[in-house]
This record gives sequence, C-alpha cells and structure tokens, in this order.
Amino acid sequence: MTTIYLAGPEVFLPDAMPIMAEKRRLARQFGFEPTGPGSDENQTPVKRTAAEIYSRNDTAMRRADICLANITPFRGVSADPGTVYEIGFMIALEKAVFAYTNHPDDYGLRVRSIWYAGLEIDETSGRPRGPDGIAIENHGMADNLMIDGGVEATGGKVFRATTFPADPARDLAVYLQALQTIAAMRADGRSPTKAAR
Amino acid sequence: MTTIYLAGPEVFLPDAMPIMAEKRRLARQFGFEPTGPGSDENQTPVKRTAAEIYSRNDTAMRRADICLANITPFRGVSADPGTVYEIGFMIALEKAVFAYTNHPDDYGLRVRSIWYAGLEIDETSGRPRGPDGIAIENHGMADNLMIDGGVEATGGKVFRATTFPADPARDLAVYLQALQTIAAMRADGRSPTKAAR
Repeated sequence: MTTIYLAGPEVFLPDAMPIMAEKRRLARQFGFEPTGPGSDENQTPVKRTAAEIYSRNDTAMRRADICLANITPFRGVSADPGTVYEIGFMIALEKAVFAYTNHPDDYGLRVRSIWYAGLEIDETSGRPRGPDGIAIENHGMADNLMIDGGVEATGGKVFRATTFPADPARDLAVYLQALQTIAAMRADGRSPTKAAR
Repeated sequence: MTTIYLAGPEVFLPDAMPIMAEKRRLARQFGFEPTGPGSDENQTPVKRTAAEIYSRNDTAMRRADICLANITPFRGVSADPGTVYEIGFMIALEKAVFAYTNHPDDYGLRVRSIWYAGLEIDETSGRPRGPDGIAIENHGMADNLMIDGGVEATGGKVFRATTFPADPARDLAVYLQALQTIAAMRADGRSPTKAAR
C-alpha cells in the first residue's frame, strides 16, 4: 500500500475534522493510505506538546512514500510554513513530493496584490521591487522558487487552480485533480522516486 | 573546515551584497566557511533560471555541515518560505541546523499583531482563534512548531532577539550571538550532528 502524507494547514480550521476526513476518504479512493497531521481519526483527541506533534509528523514523513502538500496561501502571501518545512524535509528524504494551491496567481502577483496592495512597484532596476526596496521574486512560480524548484527536481508537480474558488481554504477540486494525476503517473510507471542530483 | 550554509532572505534586499558580505566575514571570523545564496562573491553576476538557482542551493546544502537560518519575519507573520524549505531539507539530511530571528515576539503574538491587527481574538474554544475561526498556534515558539521543533530535535537552537531592533532586516546582533554559541558548542564537543529519531 502506498502511503501519502497529506501536508497542509487544514488542522487550523474550525471544521478541521470533516475536511481532513474528506481528504483522507478521497486519497483512499485512489488507492493511497493517508497519513500526516490529524490522521489519527479513530483515536481520542489528546492535547500534545509541540515536541510530541513534531515527533509524530517526523515519523509519519519518514514512513510515507508520497507527499501531497496544500500550499494555498495561509495568512498572507505564501504557504503555511509548517507545510513548507515538510516539503523540504520530504524532498531531502527522496520521497515523491507534489503540491497544490487553490490560488491561481503566481507568487510575484500575490506579493503585489496581498502584501503591497495598492502600492507602487519599482520596475526600473531590472528586478521588480516594493516601495521598501525589497525584490519581488518573479519566476512565475506558485511560491518561492525553492518550493516549486524542489518539487520539480524530484519529478513531482505543482498543481494550480485556474480560477480562485469561493472557499480557497476548503475547496478540493485541485486536490482531486492532483490525486488523479499522481495515481495515473504511478499506473504508467512514471512514479517519481529519487531526487535529481 | 566546517562549512556553514547561511539561509535567509537577505538576497532580496536592495543592499544585499554588502549585508551578505558582512555575514560571510563574521562567519569566517568564527572559523566557518560560509556558503549558500549569494556566496559566489567573486564571480561575475549572471541571471540564472529558477531551476539553476534551486540546483545551486541544493548542492550547497548537501555539501554544508551546518545551517544558520535567518527566520526574521519576511513580508508577513512568518519566515521567508525559501528559508523554511532549506531548514526542513537540511534537518532531513541530518545537518546541524540553527535559526535566529530579530523579532522578539513568538508566533502566536505575531499572528495577533501582524495578521489580525486590531481584530478580536476568540479565546472561548480552548484554542485561540481569529475572527475567521482559524486557530492560532500557541506553543510560544518563534515560528510554526515544525521549524522550532525540527531545530530542537537535531540538538540545534533558535536564537531570538530580546528587543525589536531598529532595522530588523539587517541587524546582525542575534546572528553574531548565534555564531558565538555554535562555535563554543563545537569547541566543547557539543556539536549536534544526527537528528533524534
């Protein structure tokens, strides 16, 4: 059974349990065994220390075959930092890593619309810069180039919404598309395994 | 020679070159050979593709012994996502990973002051939640618990400013304190090497 680590910030939602249960149900429908934050669905909830939560996620990441990470922007321009950590961690472990985002705009557009909303961007220096002089990464990628770059270097893929859904924190259309593609890649023997060096 | 990978968002600053040169100079002063983004200081600058930048950083991370990451909040509540990726990546590779931040407040306080600025926080459900219902991580850590948790699991340390400096994007006092501590740990044979499993 192929184990898939479902990384993402859903654990923080007020309705985390039903959303995460639905994500696990869909993963199983494609033949994957889901793991990761909140996957202990049949256990009595207990309050865990940060070190305990870290340790459980560390173990689950090492045991998993695949990561599918939700990098929809969380409280700002970029993905949830816990999720980004997990992407880097699992790429270094040479797992097959995929990501999806419900935001159709690339990182450079989001820096303009979310962080520098309405402020003038300096396009004169060869690199676009905010009014604070800080350069805006402009590679057309879904998030910081290390995230997209790492996923692509392992043979994975970043799936991006084509339009902004009504409820980006909960919408599962792009997640479903990602599961379908990963299942098809594995059926075709195009399963990414080892990171390109 | 111990190689130290200097992760952080300084590369985006308008005065990136002198700041990064000063960080490398200080690292050398403590006996470390600096590497990482922008460390090709004696080469003619060339415009690189995202894949080329990823590949150079990947190689530098694999070759380095230590990571010292600047997790000072970047355009929002949390650290630069590229830096967070590199922390996760180097922890999985069992490097000795350290981080520092020029923001004295923990993550929970910053979510309140930066993201929900002035809005009421719901403290009634057992977990603090923003007006959007999204839970605020409340472990007293510098950033998302995966970052602090991962660094601490390897025997590393997160260094935090005690007061907010005048120029948090450039201040090097906590960076210097981190270098001193890492050098002292290594001199004492307390050098973290392998991640706790």
